[in-house]
Formats: sequence, structure tokens, C-alpha cells
Amino acid sequence: MGMLGGGPGSFIGPVHRIAANLDGLIELVCGCFSSNPEKSAQTGDELFLPKERVYTSYQEMIEKEAALPEGERMDFLCIVTPNHLHYAPAAMAMEAGFHVALDKPVTYSLDEAKSLAEIAARTGRRILLTHTYSGYPLVKEARYRVKRGDLGKIRRVFVEYPQGWLSTDCAAVNKQAAWRVDPARSGKAGCMGDIGTHAFHLANYITGLKVKELCAELNSFVPGRLLDDDGTVMIRYEDGARCLLSASQVCAGVENGLNIRIYGEKGGLEWRQDTPNTMIFRPVDGVAEVIRTATASIVSPAAQHNSRVPGGHPEGFIEAFANLYRNFALTLMADAEQREPSECCLDYPSIEDGIEGMQFVDAVVGSSEQNAAWVKWER
Amino acid sequence: MGMLGGGPGSFIGPVHRIAANLDGLIELVCGCFSSNPEKSAQTGDELFLPKERVYTSYQEMIEKEAALPEGERMDFLCIVTPNHLHYAPAAMAMEAGFHVALDKPVTYSLDEAKSLAEIAARTGRRILLTHTYSGYPLVKEARYRVKRGDLGKIRRVFVEYPQGWLSTDCAAVNKQAAWRVDPARSGKAGCMGDIGTHAFHLANYITGLKVKELCAELNSFVPGRLLDDDGTVMIRYEDGARCLLSASQVCAGVENGLNIRIYGEKGGLEWRQDTPNTMIFRPVDGVAEVIRTATASIVSPAAQHNSRVPGGHPEGFIEAFANLYRNFALTLMADAEQREPSECCLDYPSIEDGIEGMQFVDAVVGSSEQNAAWVKWER
Amino acid sequence: MGMLGGGPGSFIGPVHRIAANLDGLIELVCGCFSSNPEKSAQTGDELFLPKERVYTSYQEMIEKEAALPEGERMDFLCIVTPNHLHYAPAAMAMEAGFHVALDKPVTYSLDEAKSLAEIAARTGRRILLTHTYSGYPLVKEARYRVKRGDLGKIRRVFVEYPQGWLSTDCAAVNKQAAWRVDPARSGKAGCMGDIGTHAFHLANYITGLKVKELCAELNSFVPGRLLDDDGTVMIRYEDGARCLLSASQVCAGVENGLNIRIYGEKGGLEWRQDTPNTMIFRPVDGVAEVIRTATASIVSPAAQHNSRVPGGHPEGFIEAFANLYRNFALTLMADAEQREPSECCLDYPSIEDGIEGMQFVDAVVGSSEQNAAWVKWER
Amino acid sequence: MGMLGGGPGSFIGPVHRIAANLDGLIELVCGCFSSNPEKSAQTGDELFLPKERVYTSYQEMIEKEAALPEGERMDFLCIVTPNHLHYAPAAMAMEAGFHVALDKPVTYSLDEAKSLAEIAARTGRRILLTHTYSGYPLVKEARYRVKRGDLGKIRRVFVEYPQGWLSTDCAAVNKQAAWRVDPARSGKAGCMGDIGTHAFHLANYITGLKVKELCAELNSFVPGRLLDDDGTVMIRYEDGARCLLSASQVCAGVENGLNIRIYGEKGGLEWRQDTPNTMIFRPVDGVAEVIRTATASIVSPAAQHNSRVPGGHPEGFIEAFANLYRNFALTLMADAEQREPSECCLDYPSIEDGIEGMQFVDAVVGSSEQNAAWVKWER
Repeated sequence: MGMLGGGPGSFIGPVHRIAANLDGLIELVCGCFSSNPEKSAQTGDELFLPKERVYTSYQEMIEKEAALPEGERMDFLCIVTPNHLHYAPAAMAMEAGFHVALDKPVTYSLDEAKSLAEIAARTGRRILLTHTYSGYPLVKEARYRVKRGDLGKIRRVFVEYPQGWLSTDCAAVNKQAAWRVDPARSGKAGCMGDIGTHAFHLANYITGLKVKELCAELNSFVPGRLLDDDGTVMIRYEDGARCLLSASQVCAGVENGLNIRIYGEKGGLEWRQDTPNTMIFRPVDGVAEVIRTATASIVSPAAQHNSRVPGGHPEGFIEAFANLYRNFALTLMADAEQREPSECCLDYPSIEDGIEGMQFVDAVVGSSEQNAAWVKWER
Repeated sequence: MGMLGGGPGSFIGPVHRIAANLDGLIELVCGCFSSNPEKSAQTGDELFLPKERVYTSYQEMIEKEAALPEGERMDFLCIVTPNHLHYAPAAMAMEAGFHVALDKPVTYSLDEAKSLAEIAARTGRRILLTHTYSGYPLVKEARYRVKRGDLGKIRRVFVEYPQGWLSTDCAAVNKQAAWRVDPARSGKAGCMGDIGTHAFHLANYITGLKVKELCAELNSFVPGRLLDDDGTVMIRYEDGARCLLSASQVCAGVENGLNIRIYGEKGGLEWRQDTPNTMIFRPVDGVAEVIRTATASIVSPAAQHNSRVPGGHPEGFIEAFANLYRNFALTLMADAEQREPSECCLDYPSIEDGIEGMQFVDAVVGSSEQNAAWVKWER
Repeated sequence: MGMLGGGPGSFIGPVHRIAANLDGLIELVCGCFSSNPEKSAQTGDELFLPKERVYTSYQEMIEKEAALPEGERMDFLCIVTPNHLHYAPAAMAMEAGFHVALDKPVTYSLDEAKSLAEIAARTGRRILLTHTYSGYPLVKEARYRVKRGDLGKIRRVFVEYPQGWLSTDCAAVNKQAAWRVDPARSGKAGCMGDIGTHAFHLANYITGLKVKELCAELNSFVPGRLLDDDGTVMIRYEDGARCLLSASQVCAGVENGLNIRIYGEKGGLEWRQDTPNTMIFRPVDGVAEVIRTATASIVSPAAQHNSRVPGGHPEGFIEAFANLYRNFALTLMADAEQREPSECCLDYPSIEDGIEGMQFVDAVVGSSEQNAAWVKWER
Repeated sequence: MGMLGGGPGSFIGPVHRIAANLDGLIELVCGCFSSNPEKSAQTGDELFLPKERVYTSYQEMIEKEAALPEGERMDFLCIVTPNHLHYAPAAMAMEAGFHVALDKPVTYSLDEAKSLAEIAARTGRRILLTHTYSGYPLVKEARYRVKRGDLGKIRRVFVEYPQGWLSTDCAAVNKQAAWRVDPARSGKAGCMGDIGTHAFHLANYITGLKVKELCAELNSFVPGRLLDDDGTVMIRYEDGARCLLSASQVCAGVENGLNIRIYGEKGGLEWRQDTPNTMIFRPVDGVAEVIRTATASIVSPAAQHNSRVPGGHPEGFIEAFANLYRNFALTLMADAEQREPSECCLDYPSIEDGIEGMQFVDAVVGSSEQNAAWVKWER
């Protein structure tokens, strides 16, 4: 793969590189790591890349890579730049024949996301969207159990993503914060685009429910902040189930508290990202069970496929991230061998999830601007 | 004290009796435990009460007790009947010179609550409203720390009260369920009246914030159920802070998961009722602290006053309940001795909290009926 | 009941009074709360006792109470003095016809314990020994499940009682510490007598296993301390099972971490005193279950009998303590009515447990003095 | 690197490969994955290795690799065979100029371990011993804080390694179990060699204390099992501190419960492998602190160096394992560039830890054979 972004000071660039590399299926072969050529070169050196494959612009990278012989050129382009710099390189890469891996949220706007979908369909290229959290084995187990009916008809979903790292006005000193709170780079939402979309994807992935309408209130607590740093969304699903989604980046002192709880007629499931190897199943009348990664308790083929070590050896964020890349790579390998990719391989977030995420951002912002009015979900 | 209600099969009646009795300050001297005289007599026998002080109606009880000499007659009447049977005996008792202890929610309607406040003011009688959860030592500690400014200006409150025991249509077989889901006995709200008011009181008690407006959605998931068994409330406080309150009785398998999380500019506090002796304090930049009941970590006089055993000896629901009764009793004792009750003694929920709770029910139901419209809080 | 000890500054005295009082079955009618008459009188006043029933010595109390008419005099004497002051009043009380409740460890020495057993047998008096922790509902549930065979043959027990409150040389400023570290008042063991006996009782109570031999190492970490403040015991049971018992009062910062884990051929059970309403059951091949107080998960009649509130309402130390007193009271009531007390009523620790505890202290100290030699358990 | 062992059905082979590969510093270039040439070839294919570098014996691998030009041949040999097959290939590899990475325990016997140390010293080769658990960031943080004196003088250590997977006689069906319970392949200890050495290493690594003497009891609970599947060790350190070490593989239902608790004059530290990103610090008089991986709470340079993602993104077993390999690789890179490796790079377990582990096994088995007699630690 080639990488766009992820130069010095990047948080998510190195994570993508480690995750892609973890299973030995993907090799980083080129990159344009920074708009500053010196920084790009520095990162290239640190990664043992040959100098001629460290580029100074994505245009150069795509053109020169496309000119390389098959088998030598990159197979796909990984884009880890801020949101406003996703669309153009992704579009150009696909037009040039490359698949694409994109950090979330997929684009700056819904229109851009739809356009990427059109290009992907036309060019036959695949898109990986790194909603990491659906890569955890127990999230897959949850999806499986919901589908199997362990919970009966679902009634109530709670999904929360609290963080505290934007509790202060840290944009001046924190590069990660700076672009996230800037409408020109982040898009029309701040917190809801950055982490609300993760929560929304997680609920969709596990439950498979379809949104009918939603109402939302977005808040901006830190003085001077232009985008939301906190928000609440009430979601009505088409079949009558309800979801309460909250996301906040001003929960002082909280690290990364993504969690989901789902209750149906027959039972409930509870999972937290900060203890990702444990999930609680609560039968409506009975004793709660402790479902654990990689023990007898995992029954879903997808969960087993996405776990690497025996029970009791904690798996974490990087492994979840690597699961996305591994499945994407296995799919590309199947394509290359003209085999049908298995369901387990195709189990990675893609452009459809990206469109849903951008639609979510639009709907949430729209509702909030109308004082939390109900907004219908368009299909 | 005398007790109205709490006969065979009652859950909360015995809890009131144990809690009131726990510290040796209050003695049960009479009761009318059931509208069925035989059942009432049976409970009286079990409680070693003399037969002449087991009554067949609250009217009889109040009249006959009032006729007894001071020091012999009950000091206050404890009412643990369903909601629709609170007002009349409470009003009559106060008019006859007795103080009153009421299970929550305070009455069937807001008007009734306001009327009780008027009678109490006119007669100089005191009212205890048993919102148990503000009796926990660490809840008092939280209130103290918020007031002291440990969290800075509060921005975001999450308060949840999930239960699962009404996940099925159990009214026919569960006496506790039967009246709670019946509008004629419960009032205009089900879940929100029964446990939503607890959550609302808890948030008010700790933060001291004033509601400006709220919007709410109530749901009724179990087929045929007439009242809400689930609901979400978004609250805007007057100073800009926000609260997300959810209450549900269809979270299958969940016992009694009341919890609150409060985040301000300088830090956060997190507390759960099912592990009531631990509270987490998160400074905005620093290491989280584990605040525990009855160790060096408790600094609030109220928390110390409301704890009975050294650290590491778990205190539970009954002790929290008993704290309400103890403070009420200490206040009545101070009154009797014509002393000013201390702040610690006066620290029990009363009719003002009851009115706020009924106003909350009215606003929530009103908002939900208008598809979650914003409803101003009247003062 | 009457109380000996428990005057100003006492920790355990008030706990006994609350616990005894909690269910309305036991009334404190007299006491000798301190060897200092003024302090004794002060406590008596605070407890609303008539002055004539606050005594200045246990001899006076026993004599004068014995002279009162039946029904008016105390039924039993509760002794909460330091260890060296247990035997004489207990013996005298039984000889005078009173039952006895004793705080643990039962006496200063094994000989004293055996003598109390003899007197009890001869006089037909009953003895309650307050090993609180076996009063928890889930401990009773554990005992039941072990007996039912859920774990299969037991192989391995771990029981630990870590505390940190004696990490410093605090005897000069802490009355509770002062007598516990003094051989003249505490007996031949410090930590092992004070809390090791609790751990030992807990393991015996749940497993029913019989000790064959043990070896132990006792340590005294705080400079100048004469008795052990830490120790480890390896226990071999008669049937080949093994127990590792540790107790320490120098685990800096730890409150009261009593916990037990039991593993057999078919499964394991794990319980911690600081979260007493949860127990984990681990089947040898399967999914761990979360057993909770007072839900469908409690199956033992004894556990149900010893729980007062529905699931999700935490029960704590005081309720566990009260369970001992309630069962003792129910037994005395059955005696009074010449009924056979039920198994549930007789379920309280007594003099046999006390003798086992003192024998444990003797064996542990003996082993430690021989550099952790194996000591046979005498029967 | 080249790999010996790790063919089809191996648990730890794939973990080594992922861990070594994770940071992009180490590439698998050859292997002899099984004594069965077909299986070896199959694994080689799955790993995209050229057929000519998949060997049929370690002798062939070492000889042929040694004949390759520098830069092309493997840098070190990773040995993941059962214990009895560690020594010969490790010795031969070092003599041929290769460094060595060994799974634990280091060898079949203490003599073999000492011999490897001699060869390493003579040939100037480096040895990595994969005691994974000291690779966790918070374990490094613990070591740092102990050294800094946060705990004061250490008094008491508890280290436990309970597992349940050998609760039944599963050797016939579980390849992992088969060799571990076989004295011919495992060495003179079973459980104590397999996981007791991990616990021992962890305590040594964090505390830096020196063993003076120990006594131990080993048990074999599963009928017919020849080696210990459970054991307890009491350790006396030279400066008077005490450690209680227990390891068991018959704790039915337990996964991998390694945990350590350390208490000193000024405070305590508690860490569990199954929640590896949280550590509790308990000051002797104060409020417990929650130390977390990769937040402001990590102060040790080594902990920071061995963490890859921001706080709140769980790091697990694979990352801990990868830390060992990364430090080993950075050390080899420094060697190659004739730089002095930094302290952070040299922070990986090596042959000295292996010798200590084998000496531990010898002492423990020796003590147990003498009915838990005290055995002096030889230096």
C-alpha cells in the first residue's frame, strides 16, 4: 500500500501502518507523508522506504505509481489526512486503478461521499473505511447474536462515545485538535463527525436496524469553539426500536469511553471499548453471562476469524484495526485470484457506511439547527 | 411512627420499617397495613404490635392516634401505598398534627403535591420524601465537591436509571408491577414517575442546577401497556449546562442500574448505585481518583454524618434509606427540644423535591405528547 | 440484650447494636459500656437506656439482670470487649442463665474457648460468634452450591484477607490498633487472630473441608511490633484438597479485601467482600455466570432467607451482621416456644467455630515458630 | 529472523511472528516449522516464504543460512519448540554467529541454561527470552515507581498465575497440553516451569528484590498427571521482604489470571494481566489512583517507549510481546551501527532471567520433594 498523510506528529498514521502490517499481508511500499517535502522524506527514511517512492504530492504519487509495473506498484492508497483532503486523492486514485483505504469520516461532505461511491462502482475499485470499533471480535459476536435472535426483537439501544481531551481550548497546542475544531477542515460537524459517526456505525453494524427519523441537539461548550464538542441524538428506527446516541469531547478526564448496550424482548448485550474482551449477555429472566474473546463463549465464525490469540490474552485496539486491514487484504487477494471473497473477508466497513455516516452528520446538524426537530432519514 | 400500607407482599413497606428502625431513633407503634383487615392484623402480629393499634383505615388510625396522649401517640405517619393513595391520608394526618413520611413519587398529581406543601406550611408539619438514592454517603460527597468547585462550571450531566423487570407483561402476576402500569393508580407517567423522578432528583441534588426547559420522548414497548416503560429527556439548565436523562424498565436483565456522571470545566465525577461505595473523580488533566465511602477520601461533613462503618465495610441500600429516616428523626427531635436542626439533619428530601418531581412528570409527559417539543420549566 | 463494651470510640459496639436492632427482633435493654463509669453512663444516655440499667461492671450487670423478672431482664449478653476480656463475663453470664453473643476471636486462648463450650453444653446456653462474613447471602449461596456438587470435588482454595490500616505504628493514636497489637490483650497472634480467623472460618463455612495439617509463616513488618501483622498459611485438607490462606494488615492502602476463590473438578466460585452482591461461577468448560444477591440466580433457601431487598439494591456489611443476630434471635424464639429451630435459624457461627479458630491460631503460631513446619490438626 | 517450530496447530508460533513483525523492524526470512517436512512446507507457503528457505531441520537451516551473504541471511533464530528442544539449536545457532530468541522457560534444565549463557558470552551473541508480561507498559511503570521509591521499602508481594485449562486430562486431545505435562519434554516441573516462571520473573522485574530462600509445595490434582499442575511458593528476600507466589492450571474456568500486588511502607501497586491498561496505586494514607497506559499518568520513559497509541485505546498481549521484539531489534540495530544500545532498548528479558527461572524451578521442586523445606538460593 501507499500512504497519504501520517507524517511527523500524526497519531493515526502510525496506527494504520502497524495495523496494515500486523498480519504480514500488506506492505507499505510508498508514501506522501506530509505537504512539507522534508517531513515527508524524514518519515520515509524512518520507514525504510526507498527515496524514489517518497513523493511530494498525491498527484505525483498516483501518477508515478500507476506507471510502475503490476506487482511492484502499490495495490491501494491509504488516506489519513484531515477530512477535507480525502475526496480528491481518493477519486484520483480510483480513476487511476487503485483501491482506497480511508480514515473516517469518509469525506468532508455527503456529496463527496456519494461521488466516491459512484466512482468506485464505475471503476470497480474497493474502499475500506476504518471504523475501527466494528473490528473487535466481540462486536462481531454481538452482531451475530442479535441476528440469531438471542435478544428477540430489539427495543432499546444506548450508544455513547464520551471523551475528555477537548475539554480545554487546546487547538493552539494540539495538532490533532486543531483541524478537528476547524469547520474548513473538519466539515459541518466536530464531535459528531469525529466520534459520533463511530457510535452510529457501531449501532448500525451490530443491530442492522434502519433509521426512520432522528432529532439532535449539538452543543459547543468551550468558549470560542466553532463546531460542536458535545451532542445527543434520539433515533427512531423503522420497526419502532429506539436508540439514544451521545457523543462528547468535553467529558473531562474520560479517555475513550465508547460503549453500547442493546436490549430486546429476550435479553440484553453490553460492551465497552475500554474492556473490549468482555461482553455481558443478560437473559430477560436468568443469570448474566460473561462472554469473552477467544474462549468457548465465542460462537460466531466472524468473531473467531477476527481473533488471534487464545482466551485470556487481551486483544486491543491495534488488533481490531488490523482486522479491518486483514479482511480488506483477503478480499483483494480473492479478487486477484478471481475467487469470490468469503463473507468473513468482506466484513469491513466501506463506502456505504461512509455515506450513512455523512448522512447522519447532515441530519444531526440539520435537526440541531432547528432546535432538535425531527428529521426524516432519506433513502 | 405509624405506617399506612406495607402489608403482606409489599416490597417497600418492610424496607421502610427496617430503615426507620435501624438507628434506634424511631419505633413503629401502630399501623394500617392493608385495606383487608385480616391482612392488616396479620402484619401487625408479625411486627409485635398491640392489636388495638392495628387499624382498618387511615381515617381510624389518624383519629385514634390523635386522641392518644403525647409521647404515646405516633409522631409521624409513614405512607407506603400506591401513588393515588398518598394525598388524602397525608393531608388528613398533617391537619391532625402529625408529620408525614411519603414514598415517592410524592402524589398522584402536581396539584396534590402543591396542596400538601400548602398544608405543611400552614400546619408547621414536616414531610419526608424517600428519594433513597440521595441518602448514599458518596452522593452527599458528590454534592459537596460540586459545590466546592472541584469540577468547575458544570457542562454535561448524564443520569440513567435502567431496569429490566417490566420487560414482560407481568402485571397479572406481579403485584408491584400491577399498580405501576395502571394510570388510575400510578398517575400520568409509568417509568418516568416511578424511577425517572429518582434520576431527576439525584441530578438536582448533586448539581443544584435549575432546569430551564426540557424535551422528552416516552415509549411503551410492552404490548398493551398504557403507560411509558421507557423514556429519554434532554434537559437544558438555566446556565447553559445540559443533562441527558434516561429511564427504562425494559432493559432486559438489568437490575437497578441508576448511575450519574457529571463533567465540568475542571473535572468529572462518576457514581453507580450498584457499587455505591466507590466514586471516581477525574481531574481534567491528571490521574483519576477512587473516592470511597468512609475513608480519608470522604471530606464532606454530610458524607461522614451519613456513614456508619469504617472503610471497606460495604454500605448499601438499607443504610442509605436509613439515612433519610435518621436525619428526619434528628430534625423532629431538635424541633421537640426547640433547637434549630443542623444542616446535616435537615438533609432529607421533602415536599419541594416532591413538587419538582411532579412538575418533571408533567413536563415530560407534555413534551412527549407534542413529539418531543421543548417545554419551559415554570417557576 | 445487654452489652458489655462498646462505649465512646468503639467501632464494633455500634455495629453490633445496629445489627441486632435491624430486624426489630432484639432490643438493647441494658449495658456496661466502659470500665469508666462516666463513659458508660454517657453511652447509656445516648442509647435512651434507663440509668438503673447502665452498669459499672459486668458482674454487677449479670447479677442485677438475673434478679429481674423473666421478660424484663436481658435474654443474652453481647460481649464486644478486647479478646482477653471475653471469657470471664461469658462464663459468668452462662452460669447465670444468659445466652451469649461474642465478637471474634472467641477468647484469648484455646483453653478458654474449650471451657466456654463446656459451660454452654452444661448450662444449655447458646453462643453466637460474630464471624460476620458468613452472614452474606452469597456466601451462603456458595456453601449451598459446593454442597450440591456444582464444583465437583474441590481441589484448590485461595482465601485472602488483606488490610492496610496497620501499615504504620499507629497504636499510640488508634484505640482500635492499640489492643490488637498488644499480646496481653490480643492473645498469641495479632493479624492471624484478628482477621486470619475470619478467612479461616469463611473457607470452612463454604467448603466444609476438614484440615489435616498446615504450615505457616508469620511476619511482623512494622518495627517494634510484638505480634504478627502479616502471614501465610498452607493448608492440606484430609481429602487432598489444598488451601492457601493469607492475611495481612500491612497491605498499604487496602481497606478490607477479604476474598475467596474455590476451584473443583467441575468449576470455580469467586467472591469478594468489597463487592458482596456479586459472585462469579466458572464452569470448567463454558461461560462464566454472574450470580447476584436476590435475583433468580440465588437458589439456596439460606441465601434467600438472609436477603431483605430485591436484586439491585446493594446489601452490605451491616445486613450481613444483622443476619447473624436475626438467626440467633429466631433460634432463641424457637427455644422459647419449645419449637425445633429450623436449619436456616441455626445458621450462625457458634462456639465450635470459635474453638476451630483458636486451634487455628495455635497451629499457625506453632508452625511459624518452627520455621513453617507442618503441624497436624488435632481432633 | 528465522523460526524453528511454529507449524500447523502451534499457538505461540504465530504470536511470535505477529509480534516480531508488528513494528516493521523484523522480517521473517526462513523457517523450519515442523519436524514433518510437509507441514513445514505448508506453513512456509502460508507465510509467503521462498521454498528454498523452508528447511527440514534446524541443522540444515543454520548451516545454509550461515552460508548466505550478510544482509540476506537471517539475523537471529527464533525458537518456539517445546522446552527440551531449545538448547541444541540455540547453542548451534550462536556458534554459527546468530543471535537467538527463545520462548520460555529458557531450556529443559538449569545446566543447559548456564551453558547457553557461556556460549553467548563467548560468541558475543544476544539472547531474547520472551517473558511477555514484562513487556506491558504498566509493568515497566511499576518497576519505575518502585525504583523511585513511591512504595517505600517493600514488605509484601503477592504474585499469582491461575489458569484453568489443564483442569481435565486433556493431553490426548490438546497438543499444547501434551508436551507440557510430559516430563521428557517439559522438564522437572509442569505448571511451575510453564507459568510459575512467568510469575517469578514478573516479581523480580518489578521489585528488583533478591531471593534469599524459598519453600514450596507442588501438587498434581488431575489423576495420572506426572508433573505439578498447581503450586505455592513462599519466598523470603534478602532484605526481609516476603513474596507469596502461586501458580495453578486447575483453577477451573480461569483464563489467564496473572496478577501482582506489591505493598511497601508508603504505598501499594496492583496490576492484572487481564486488564493490562489499568494499575492501581494506593498511598498508605490517601486516595487510590488509577494509573492508565498512555495518559498523563505514565511517567516512566520505558513505559512511554513501550506504548504505541494514545490513552483509551487498549493495548494487549500482542503489543506487549512486540515490545520485547522491538527492543531486541533496536539493540541489534545499535550493535550493527556500533552504537551503545539505550537502556530502553536493552530492556528485554535475556539469559540471566532464564537462568533465574531454571534455578527457581530447581529450588521449588527441591523444596516440594522435602515437604516444603526451606531451600537457600545459590548465587
